[in-house]
Amino acid sequence: MDLRTRRKIGVIGTGIADQKVYARAYEVGRLLAERGAVVFCGGLGGVMEAAAKGAVEAGAVTVGILPGNKAEEANPYIQIPIVTDMGHARNVILVRSVEGVIAVSGGYGTLSEIALALKMWKPVVGLETWPDIEGVVYTETPEEAVDSLFQLLEGND
Amino acid sequence: MDLRTRRKIGVIGTGIADQKVYARAYEVGRLLAERGAVVFCGGLGGVMEAAAKGAVEAGAVTVGILPGNKAEEANPYIQIPIVTDMGHARNVILVRSVEGVIAVSGGYGTLSEIALALKMWKPVVGLETWPDIEGVVYTETPEEAVDSLFQLLEGND
Amino acid sequence: MDLRTRRKIGVIGTGIADQKVYARAYEVGRLLAERGAVVFCGGLGGVMEAAAKGAVEAGAVTVGILPGNKAEEANPYIQIPIVTDMGHARNVILVRSVEGVIAVSGGYGTLSEIALALKMWKPVVGLETWPDIEGVVYTETPEEAVDSLFQLLEGND
Amino acid sequence: MDLRTRRKIGVIGTGIADQKVYARAYEVGRLLAERGAVVFCGGLGGVMEAAAKGAVEAGAVTVGILPGNKAEEANPYIQIPIVTDMGHARNVILVRSVEGVIAVSGGYGTLSEIALALKMWKPVVGLETWPDIEGVVYTETPEEAVDSLFQLLEGND
Repeated sequence: MDLRTRRKIGVIGTGIADQKVYARAYEVGRLLAERGAVVFCGGLGGVMEAAAKGAVEAGAVTVGILPGNKAEEANPYIQIPIVTDMGHARNVILVRSVEGVIAVSGGYGTLSEIALALKMWKPVVGLETWPDIEGVVYTETPEEAVDSLFQLLEGND
Repeated sequence: MDLRTRRKIGVIGTGIADQKVYARAYEVGRLLAERGAVVFCGGLGGVMEAAAKGAVEAGAVTVGILPGNKAEEANPYIQIPIVTDMGHARNVILVRSVEGVIAVSGGYGTLSEIALALKMWKPVVGLETWPDIEGVVYTETPEEAVDSLFQLLEGND
Repeated sequence: MDLRTRRKIGVIGTGIADQKVYARAYEVGRLLAERGAVVFCGGLGGVMEAAAKGAVEAGAVTVGILPGNKAEEANPYIQIPIVTDMGHARNVILVRSVEGVIAVSGGYGTLSEIALALKMWKPVVGLETWPDIEGVVYTETPEEAVDSLFQLLEGND
Repeated sequence: MDLRTRRKIGVIGTGIADQKVYARAYEVGRLLAERGAVVFCGGLGGVMEAAAKGAVEAGAVTVGILPGNKAEEANPYIQIPIVTDMGHARNVILVRSVEGVIAVSGGYGTLSEIALALKMWKPVVGLETWPDIEGVVYTETPEEAVDSLFQLLEGND
């Protein structure tokens, strides 16, 4: 498995997800894995865990950019924990390290990541997330979200 | 001058400001200085420069949390440059170091700072900035912005 | 390949290596791969490149914690580039993310990483690196370096 | 007081100082204040507190680059707390923000700062600190330390 040629994609979203949001994020992770992506997230619970679970169960490598100072804080589906000990500044590293992001639901932390990704001119696809932000491509389903992101990235290549 | 007891306030906003935005940010800086605040900003141009200019010309101490690796990149009105060499991650340090922020105009970088401040439960006052963000207290004039922020902070004390 | 159970090991050292140092670092990377480790480094040239090359050619996954703001700055043997845009502060993230480090040769940047690792109570094995630092386990060959580190880590488990 | 033209100097050293070390660091802070410097430190106890106390009691402005996420963690002599929430990575910001450093005693954290300062080609003056590091100018008294640093800085101007 040569990971160098794989796309690096970030999934961002709330740390506390209800069943429906969890299922959507899981599906996003699974579909990204099917496309061969390495899946990056913030490494904790909720959307981050669901996406990593979906990805890893479909055979992808998962990277968690953690805010705290212990690798053990990663959810059980993170294969490569990056231990930043930098709190919210890890959001910047996460966004900087990926080619594009899919935002699923999310609160203020996710909003900061959406803004940072757009600031860095990276594609941002939204799925039931912060509405009406210029530059975000809004979608309705995990399939549409992943399709849209890959189309945007192929347009960039 | 004992700076320890002074309020630490951040002014955030676009790095390229037209005359009207510059004048508003200058006025925000000036009014913060009159209230005795130490004024923090991102240290570069536009709103950051205007607020620092207003503050320093009214006798305040100004702190610039710089993204680059050279103190010389600070605008001429920064008295204490903090040289982070951390790009956008300096936004997190700026917001973390102040008691509240006033957002004047602004693009995606400012949006990330608004989101980070709200995530940290800090008061955010907006002046012709990103609309419709839950938690931001929107105002119409520099006077109203500074008044609102100080009222919010006194409520927190 | 479940990477979660693999040891995460850092190789640190000079960015500009002569042939002898390059060969040693390559061998360290290769031996770490044989032990099943995921190999972390700073992602650039010299010792970082040699260790990643040795590791990846022996089948390991390699992670490069980059100081700059572009994944393309990684050497060709990095499979997972982490793009910090944080200059030397990436040294802290590198050391924080691994269980132990092997220092091969190296200048002041490496010295900072040795000190940070010791500050975090992580095992540091030295191979022709900064001498006489209390806490560093000095070794003479790549084999001895890798053996020593794994013994120290097993003692910690 | 125009702080822009003041030299920015860092004092680094152990967080837990005995009486003798505390007295030396206090004296370093006091002498830096007499020279008109703005004194930067890591904002916590021991050498950091002593240097800030000496500086502030002699009328200087003090800046503390804190590792944690609360301004309240600063020692009582810090006038401008910079709240990084970045753990040891704050060492990099501290060193990057000053023109030169004086190291008083110190453990591994201080060693990392000495190394980072030398990596950035900044003058480092040592006072009973890590011995035998090429590039450090070793001195015997606070007076000699401050004199040496200012001579080195004037040579750089």
